[in-house]
Amino acid sequence: MPLVDLSHPLTTGMPVYPGDPEVTFAPALTVAADGVAVERLDLGSHSGTHLDAPAHSIPGGRTVDRIPLELLWGPARVLRAVAPAAGGLLGIADVAGSGGASGASGPAASADALASASPDPLPAALLSALPDALPGIVCIATGWDAHFGGPLAERHPAVSLTLAEALWARGARVLAVDTLSPDLTVGGSGMPVHEFWLGNDGVIVENLTGLDAVPDEFELSLLPLRLAGIDGSPVRAVARFA
Amino acid sequence: MPLVDLSHPLTTGMPVYPGDPEVTFAPALTVAADGVAVERLDLGSHSGTHLDAPAHSIPGGRTVDRIPLELLWGPARVLRAVAPAAGGLLGIADVAGSGGASGASGPAASADALASASPDPLPAALLSALPDALPGIVCIATGWDAHFGGPLAERHPAVSLTLAEALWARGARVLAVDTLSPDLTVGGSGMPVHEFWLGNDGVIVENLTGLDAVPDEFELSLLPLRLAGIDGSPVRAVARFA
Repeated sequence: MPLVDLSHPLTTGMPVYPGDPEVTFAPALTVAADGVAVERLDLGSHSGTHLDAPAHSIPGGRTVDRIPLELLWGPARVLRAVAPAAGGLLGIADVAGSGGASGASGPAASADALASASPDPLPAALLSALPDALPGIVCIATGWDAHFGGPLAERHPAVSLTLAEALWARGARVLAVDTLSPDLTVGGSGMPVHEFWLGNDGVIVENLTGLDAVPDEFELSLLPLRLAGIDGSPVRAVARFA
Repeated sequence: MPLVDLSHPLTTGMPVYPGDPEVTFAPALTVAADGVAVERLDLGSHSGTHLDAPAHSIPGGRTVDRIPLELLWGPARVLRAVAPAAGGLLGIADVAGSGGASGASGPAASADALASASPDPLPAALLSALPDALPGIVCIATGWDAHFGGPLAERHPAVSLTLAEALWARGARVLAVDTLSPDLTVGGSGMPVHEFWLGNDGVIVENLTGLDAVPDEFELSLLPLRLAGIDGSPVRAVARFA
């Protein structure tokens, strides 16, 4: 079965989230001098493609080594945002095309409407356009991974609280995005999706890449390092499908 | 399906291979001061349960980011060493019990005989006691993971070149052990198994733990971080079985 790497490479000096530790790799031992090569790795727990444990933003929240492995290796569903705008909030209509029926209104207009409407009741037509049940892992594909490290990286689209709540209600427990964050990095106020998702003991994965190369449904491995007591971990995100 | 973690926890000050960088984790950001917790991770590329890419000991060898993912996520087979001795070399008879027929001679005696005989022709009876074909990933269970960080850790049993050659000939390409190394860490001469296995573009995984909790055949995920140009990577080794 084909395997597709959904992870950004980790390299010295790679882009990191504003304020996070830099990534630096340097030789500790070399084959020429020591018979073996060993590298010293200095990086933040949220470098590159990585996982946010609840402890990332919730005091007393679950750390990465305590997340049940079953959450992080299993069926996944991609919801693909249609024409997401820089700095825009994605509503249900923006991703509902992946679920079958199309929303009645254009994605940009509906995104604004839904974002501002949250937490008001949602239009039934939009809710019904999402799959009734989602697997434990849902990936939101915006295509913004193409901007990773570029000037538009921080002006990524984000997930509205309304959409996050609808995904959770349908069974998603791992929210994976191809942007720096499911919340706005610039121009937003607070981290409402982090607060909601991690506050409910869910898991967030950030900086996926390459979701255009996988079908809407596939198997996904997002296993983090077993970092005892730590708030997150880089992961090798790999998709498998028939 | 049950998932079983085959990885040691990664913690500040944990045991490392002699000469490797120490493992140190320290807060970079905290929820109280910064709104989010982010940890600075400083560790060697061969910390804890980890993968050796060919570049670990072979000049110009393949780096960890260039290993086909298909090698590292798939069927695995455990071969269980019977009563391995501290500092002893495991021959075919020592693990052949996992393959069905038992060797004619006792494990300790045969181990010594085979180790010293390599690379001479192998007794046909012992060869036939190994499975005819092995999956891509073979795990050698010695139980020495119980000594991880203890006084006997470095006096682990090791894989004889004879056994390594036999495993390779039967299709194994990932050699995973529950010790610090498939080669002797103390008392040996050189790293014959590393030279052979990595020299043939195979992959070694070291410091598995918990192989007594999995059946002889299972699915194993050993996906490394996508560390560009690096000689190895910590991994979260996870077994899945029906």
